[in-house]
Amino acid sequence: MYAEKLQCVKCQATYELIDYYSCSVCGGILDVRYDYERISKKHTVDQIIPSPGMNIWRYRLLLPVSQEEYMTSLQEGGTPLVRSESLAKTIGARDLFIKDETRNPSGAFKDRPMSVGISQALQLKKAAVATASSGNGAASIAMYAAKAKLACYIFIPEATPIGKVAQSVACGAKVIKVKGDYSNSFRLAKQAASECSWMNLTSTFLNPYTVEGDKTVAYELFHQLGRRVPDWVIIPTGAGPLVYGIYKGFAELRGLGITSDVPRMVAVQAEGCKPIVSAYESNRSTVTGWEKVRTIASAIADPLRGYEQDGERVLQVIGESKGAAVAVSDEEVVRAVLLLAQEEGIFVEPAAAVSIAGLDKLIRAGTIQGAAQVVCLVTGHGLKDPTSSVKNTEVPVIGPDIAELRQVL
Amino acid sequence: MYAEKLQCVKCQATYELIDYYSCSVCGGILDVRYDYERISKKHTVDQIIPSPGMNIWRYRLLLPVSQEEYMTSLQEGGTPLVRSESLAKTIGARDLFIKDETRNPSGAFKDRPMSVGISQALQLKKAAVATASSGNGAASIAMYAAKAKLACYIFIPEATPIGKVAQSVACGAKVIKVKGDYSNSFRLAKQAASECSWMNLTSTFLNPYTVEGDKTVAYELFHQLGRRVPDWVIIPTGAGPLVYGIYKGFAELRGLGITSDVPRMVAVQAEGCKPIVSAYESNRSTVTGWEKVRTIASAIADPLRGYEQDGERVLQVIGESKGAAVAVSDEEVVRAVLLLAQEEGIFVEPAAAVSIAGLDKLIRAGTIQGAAQVVCLVTGHGLKDPTSSVKNTEVPVIGPDIAELRQVL
Repeated sequence: MYAEKLQCVKCQATYELIDYYSCSVCGGILDVRYDYERISKKHTVDQIIPSPGMNIWRYRLLLPVSQEEYMTSLQEGGTPLVRSESLAKTIGARDLFIKDETRNPSGAFKDRPMSVGISQALQLKKAAVATASSGNGAASIAMYAAKAKLACYIFIPEATPIGKVAQSVACGAKVIKVKGDYSNSFRLAKQAASECSWMNLTSTFLNPYTVEGDKTVAYELFHQLGRRVPDWVIIPTGAGPLVYGIYKGFAELRGLGITSDVPRMVAVQAEGCKPIVSAYESNRSTVTGWEKVRTIASAIADPLRGYEQDGERVLQVIGESKGAAVAVSDEEVVRAVLLLAQEEGIFVEPAAAVSIAGLDKLIRAGTIQGAAQVVCLVTGHGLKDPTSSVKNTEVPVIGPDIAELRQVL
Repeated sequence: MYAEKLQCVKCQATYELIDYYSCSVCGGILDVRYDYERISKKHTVDQIIPSPGMNIWRYRLLLPVSQEEYMTSLQEGGTPLVRSESLAKTIGARDLFIKDETRNPSGAFKDRPMSVGISQALQLKKAAVATASSGNGAASIAMYAAKAKLACYIFIPEATPIGKVAQSVACGAKVIKVKGDYSNSFRLAKQAASECSWMNLTSTFLNPYTVEGDKTVAYELFHQLGRRVPDWVIIPTGAGPLVYGIYKGFAELRGLGITSDVPRMVAVQAEGCKPIVSAYESNRSTVTGWEKVRTIASAIADPLRGYEQDGERVLQVIGESKGAAVAVSDEEVVRAVLLLAQEEGIFVEPAAAVSIAGLDKLIRAGTIQGAAQVVCLVTGHGLKDPTSSVKNTEVPVIGPDIAELRQVL
């Protein structure tokens, strides 16, 4: 057990590793801190970051749960890193990899943070967990809570796609739709969890443990690229814990002396909900909550109202890593979904494709050079929300007759 | 290259390894035959069946495509084998494993046969492929055809769930809905493929290559069980190529001297479409096509009308392996979906859960002993058809207000 404490990223106040959600001194985001020196001394590199495979608990030395009995896995992680040829050529990227997070058990990357969050809830002897989610976190927490036999309360925006709702309900979670956008769900989940002593696994930056699961993407990428650090990592971004998690993972590898650099981190949002990109574009270090959410990329439609500091954390990561932030339109998202499907045979939900759309834009803007080594995360399976980007599902219906077939072909 | 020929399973007539779909002498099913003796002589066991992982082409010595450049993978296979504790206890199975095929790229086991079929189509220099499918084969062929840059024509029953349609359309396939049940789609695809010289990858027993992909499940199980053969393997069954494929894989291991036994194979169908179970129950070796399909397990709702011999092939496997066939009701299917979700955190579509429902029934009937080692295949992700088994997706909708929340809790 090398996790030592929670520490406020703003005022550096420290706390023990229990269910705290923000700094009681300044309200800042809490981050898990480890004794890296002792890890380094006592373990080989292969022990610290073994080769990728399903089950993120292979990286337990760098995760916050100490006791094996609480480590709850649904064989998350170990997702493929696909070298793109066809799509890469289309958008002019010469060294492009797609990290396919759709291959996680629930169909989205959220299984990494939820695996850690649920395990920590067990270790802290919690009887129930809760989350606010745009849908993917909901499906994931429901699956892990079922496995761990924890009661589970889920708060999702009214407009959440039906498949994600069914996924959560099937697993026995208590699902409540909250009118309005994601920030409303966030606020109500926070209030209810606090009143009822549920562990709140909302995987923005609220829960300090879940982001530790996101780190494991970095460890996998390092191996999958032949023990190298890519030039750029491009990430669909709501509140941004995945951006911070992957960055932290690479920073840990550098801190441990395993690598000597970190990648440049890119946050991609939808034009219709871009609180972080908006601040980035106007060179502000403060984020303003978004008012009117309007995008088909529902899984990243996080307006950050009331927890704007999450976006500011992402801006810091972008700054530190010399990264970028960019927004894409729904039309660009649909084009990216179809490009991924038709050029690579990878079917993703709208929010997952913004990384490809963002890369396309940054190459055309000259921000990213065509020769750079780039990893695009695709974060959720197309079946999560199959019809938002595929409009022409009204296919021809014919009788079992070859003449009718000839007419439609 | 150790695949030698196609051979009729009835009259033993042989054919070269091109696009034949049935024996021209007797109309029988064609099967790929290999030179096992030469494989055995020239390769170690570890070369023949290496450890599981994504990409089934690691088993290329036992697959029919000879040239590496045609081997098309989307990182299929290498799916988890989950030891069940909670669910096992509920149904009284003491040594139960779940082979989670939902973790394939399209969300269903079909990626194994389609990977082989598309690769063989490339090797045979085909310009287009086609399939009849209840939806999962459609989604899979579309993804692989996109990756391989082959034109793709898909024939699906009118009632196919929207997600599977969207998945196929997104990948650029030409999708045609055919009125009536699956047998109509089957017949029209066959006729059209023949007229247009498309390679027909319909993964019943029609295409002789696709079933070779199904074999890879057996190789993985052998490893995942600690180089052992399970007592029983229980499989959701439409036309049954997965039953035959897994059986063939284990029979190959025995033939190669790697194991000394094969598992007892169980085919599970839905009460509302059970042509194979019906024959089995009345001790017939001939199958009668089903007339009125009526089940929520759409992915296995294959009436076999016009290709009844597929069912007879499955009956032979059951007979040779001392297996069984059993049908389950839609109510039992729904219960099994919820059991898998709530006890194991695994979310599957209705058809995928029939293996669990069938096991439950066979244990209660005394056919399978509680102490036997059993593997249940779960074949398709819950997101494939999220609402057929989860009816109560009408969850409460409230304002962002704790008082409203108290009322619904």
